Amino acid sequence: MTTTMRKEIAEQPAAIQATLDALLPRTGEITALAEGTRHVLFIARGTSDNAAVYGRYLIETRAGRLTALGAPSVATAYRRRLDLDGVLAVGLSQSGRTEEIVDTLRWARDCGARTIAITNGGESSPLAQAADLALCTLAGEERAVPATKTYTTQLVALAVLAIGLGADVDPGELRRVPEAVAALIEDPGDIGAVVDGLAGKAGLVVSGRGLVYSTALELALKLKEACYLHAIGLSYADLLHGPIAVVDADTPAILVAAGEGPVLAGTVALARRVRDAGASVYAIGGGEELAGAATAALRGPELPEWLAPLGLIVPGQLLTEALARRLGIDPDAPRGLRKVTQTG
Amino acid sequence: MTTTMRKEIAEQPAAIQATLDALLPRTGEITALAEGTRHVLFIARGTSDNAAVYGRYLIETRAGRLTALGAPSVATAYRRRLDLDGVLAVGLSQSGRTEEIVDTLRWARDCGARTIAITNGGESSPLAQAADLALCTLAGEERAVPATKTYTTQLVALAVLAIGLGADVDPGELRRVPEAVAALIEDPGDIGAVVDGLAGKAGLVVSGRGLVYSTALELALKLKEACYLHAIGLSYADLLHGPIAVVDADTPAILVAAGEGPVLAGTVALARRVRDAGASVYAIGGGEELAGAATAALRGPELPEWLAPLGLIVPGQLLTEALARRLGIDPDAPRGLRKVTQTG
Repeated sequence: MTTTMRKEIAEQPAAIQATLDALLPRTGEITALAEGTRHVLFIARGTSDNAAVYGRYLIETRAGRLTALGAPSVATAYRRRLDLDGVLAVGLSQSGRTEEIVDTLRWARDCGARTIAITNGGESSPLAQAADLALCTLAGEERAVPATKTYTTQLVALAVLAIGLGADVDPGELRRVPEAVAALIEDPGDIGAVVDGLAGKAGLVVSGRGLVYSTALELALKLKEACYLHAIGLSYADLLHGPIAVVDADTPAILVAAGEGPVLAGTVALARRVRDAGASVYAIGGGEELAGAATAALRGPELPEWLAPLGLIVPGQLLTEALARRLGIDPDAPRGLRKVTQTG
Repeated sequence: MTTTMRKEIAEQPAAIQATLDALLPRTGEITALAEGTRHVLFIARGTSDNAAVYGRYLIETRAGRLTALGAPSVATAYRRRLDLDGVLAVGLSQSGRTEEIVDTLRWARDCGARTIAITNGGESSPLAQAADLALCTLAGEERAVPATKTYTTQLVALAVLAIGLGADVDPGELRRVPEAVAALIEDPGDIGAVVDGLAGKAGLVVSGRGLVYSTALELALKLKEACYLHAIGLSYADLLHGPIAVVDADTPAILVAAGEGPVLAGTVALARRVRDAGASVYAIGGGEELAGAATAALRGPELPEWLAPLGLIVPGQLLTEALARRLGIDPDAPRGLRKVTQTG
């Protein structure tokens, strides 16, 4: 039986294509809205917050704007006003109905920010209604609890946002994403070998640096919510500041990397260090070099570093779905979770 | 035999007192340096980054300034300039010699920021030398690998920073901290009961919200580095967005809360929800209400919410030290770690 999650993973090339077609022509609106603003503030939770981490690194490294990940409790629990004049606030919620995020975006506007919504909930969703500009993703309905196509289409919207903010990238490269994702779904490498290595483990570390740190966080979240693993998502720098102690023969590491870029060499060195500590290392992406340092490896996408996170999560989604089934868990409906989360 | 870590935990009241005496008179210098700046950018890793999370919530909720936690790789790996005019950048490093943090603070100054160093490494440390203003903590030499007194004195420096930035708090309340910390060291509650509950577990979740989210992250880091536990530190809102699935009979939760404030009620509700999922809940602080909802509880400090993190970590430090010994680990020298971490 094919799970809904597996089916929705396979729908990603079409969902990404549709979202690209809808949003790429709109960069001018983003540029116009952002005129006169300097800093960016993301407002999100859960998977959407992991997407925002991608947006943060992309906008800082390619568009040169200081970007913060907001703390919604400052608005919703502490009810403190900040001076957000000159700030572009971007709220992300797949449903567009998570009250905490809607309330925080409204608060940001009251505090003087210009506001953008990124949502799969459509123009009529509360989040889109609360924003000056809505970038609606076209993932279609998502029924499995673990987000897949709503996440990758959020990344598309964030790439479009960065282009609207003047990122020094080639927008045409975005057109290669649907095919690169389709190729990974067709042949991600030996998922079964990694499932064998992770089944029976209580916990693991998932690490990546810079632009792909977002992928490490998102894969760790997926493994927590659908496989009940104690999965610790960390940047590779943070991993070295203490948590490296948890890595051992019973605690493997998954390391994620783009096939190029300034952080690849450090990720390969980390793979060697983790193996020297007696732990297994599973690579996702990072090309021949990272695969050569790993116990087993899954393929990464044929994409430049700035777009690599749009593909790198896909082998991770396939791994999560397969591992959940191996563990006897229905990945479509893990315990304790609902599709729209209200933080209360 | 008393471990060095246990001895350094006990040195905290004196270290906090000395740091307060040195830094409280200097709020005017902070105010003068910050004049004309609007946003704050923290630059830190590991334990220092957890301290920065406290600084971030304190400055946003009490001084009304938007605050970002910086991504050092933007400076050190991607070498991208940001426009940091009007930004106050604050670098934290206990040793003052972590190259990545020193380099990133220098980068921030080159990008137009005003700069402050918070370090236990003294005025002659590279971090202090790189900054416009150095707030040196007086924790004395720290020899155990898990940071204790260098962390709590960093929190003191951050409270002083917030006061210099105009926080609407009563600075005199800081004078109560040494005694409140001493009282917790003398009687933290039944540490043995919590050690019994955690010994043999592979992983756990540590959660807190708002100002004490920093404490949850720091305690999770301590349990990873000194007890090799798969300890997942999360805000309570993020916990509900997926990771709640990992909590079960074998995966307890530690919940941290101040004895007052707008997030206490939500933390108590979370304790009930986690127990309903069949998991054990260990409370740190949160008064009678949180203790009543928990399997076992440790005392919190007699301090207002804005200062609670300076005390709440102390029962967590005592727990870490005792649990490490129970597990046959020398908490002074866990595997894989050195005292000064170079990220490279």
